[in-house]
Amino acid sequence: MDKKIEIYGIRSIIEAIESSKDISRVYLLKSNSHKSSLFRSLVSLLENNNIKYSFVPKEKFKKFENKNHQGAVAILSPIKLLSIEELISVTFNKISSKTYVLLDGITDARNFGAIIRTAVASNVDGIIIPQNNSAPVNSDVIKTSSGGVFKIPIARVNNIKDAILHLNSIEMSIISLSEKANKTIYDYNFKESTAIIMGSEEKGISKGVLSLSNEILKIPIDSKIDSLNVSSAFSAVAFEIIRQRNF
Amino acid sequence: MDKKIEIYGIRSIIEAIESSKDISRVYLLKSNSHKSSLFRSLVSLLENNNIKYSFVPKEKFKKFENKNHQGAVAILSPIKLLSIEELISVTFNKISSKTYVLLDGITDARNFGAIIRTAVASNVDGIIIPQNNSAPVNSDVIKTSSGGVFKIPIARVNNIKDAILHLNSIEMSIISLSEKANKTIYDYNFKESTAIIMGSEEKGISKGVLSLSNEILKIPIDSKIDSLNVSSAFSAVAFEIIRQRNF
Repeated sequence: MDKKIEIYGIRSIIEAIESSKDISRVYLLKSNSHKSSLFRSLVSLLENNNIKYSFVPKEKFKKFENKNHQGAVAILSPIKLLSIEELISVTFNKISSKTYVLLDGITDARNFGAIIRTAVASNVDGIIIPQNNSAPVNSDVIKTSSGGVFKIPIARVNNIKDAILHLNSIEMSIISLSEKANKTIYDYNFKESTAIIMGSEEKGISKGVLSLSNEILKIPIDSKIDSLNVSSAFSAVAFEIIRQRNF
Repeated sequence: MDKKIEIYGIRSIIEAIESSKDISRVYLLKSNSHKSSLFRSLVSLLENNNIKYSFVPKEKFKKFENKNHQGAVAILSPIKLLSIEELISVTFNKISSKTYVLLDGITDARNFGAIIRTAVASNVDGIIIPQNNSAPVNSDVIKTSSGGVFKIPIARVNNIKDAILHLNSIEMSIISLSEKANKTIYDYNFKESTAIIMGSEEKGISKGVLSLSNEILKIPIDSKIDSLNVSSAFSAVAFEIIRQRNF
């Protein structure tokens, strides 16, 4: 199930970045940090392309010891992450209403995986994640999604705001889910194409993103508890959309 | 938050059982297994009262070494588990429709905790778990429930079937959630008091329990994926009940 691919060595990783491979993370050997100019150009490429990387002690490289890694290993994403243009184009032919989910700061792999699984089950057309501030698509995500990551297109964007402007231009309604809303998901008509924004449990949806939304809606929860888990909240709204469109 | 209480020593544990304390688990030192008659009577008491216990090596007892444990430690449940009669009586005064959730084989602590959190948020009146075949109420459950375990009554029964007969006698509708159903949750009227049965992801709801249900309903999921996570499924049905009763 886990189609993880690793790339070893500084030159190979630079090549992978230049040919736009989907790199989910790069590990660099700590003792390398003051080394060659090639190494320094790798680091600046990683910076410029917003690719996550970390310096790790040599114990972490033990498992790569029979590879010619030169102190640098990149982990490729197990799936092809699309651009938002590609996502829109692969779902363009669908005649019925579309649903996209935008994840604003979901960094927990289990929540990310659970949302993907529910998104596949509730016939969501695509998931949009930001370059930063998102859990990487890794083996935990694959497992929690029950293989769902391979069954739904996922797009990665530089930031959620750009994605919203893009979705606005194709006349999608942008709905933010937030406990601070006055209207509930049951007071809204989901029959037209909709993009649902889910925020992190700690920070919620960022203000800038909220201000770009067409509506802010809440799930009506009892005052005994502060909030729902984000994947439970997503399930409630995803199936309300299904209900309104099909039942 | 975690109100875990431990009881040390064979006699103390026997006393705790005899005074009906809520014991979630008992650890016994392996090398004790062929010992005194007192030890043997503890084991048979555990058996007769369906209390989970396990024999563990002495390394596991290291953390109890300054206690006079005689090779036996019991972990008390952090909350008071009710009998089904107590659960019905504490929720008896409510005039509006009631909702109970019966968990048939939810052994994963995170799923159990997530269901409790959603149950509190969706104003469920009580949760019913079986003596065996349930995750214990431990610190993982407390954490995943976001403290929800302290905000909803939980009853423990010898088996789910007895609980169903009991709920039938007070005229609750018994609804099993299963992917094999023909009718969906959107084809059903939840306005009257309802008990929802959720099964494990591996085995689903047992046949005997299904046959005692008034209705078997499904959440309409896309054929691309086999099933929903049990806590996501619960969220979809819990908020459909909220919608039907309040919106």
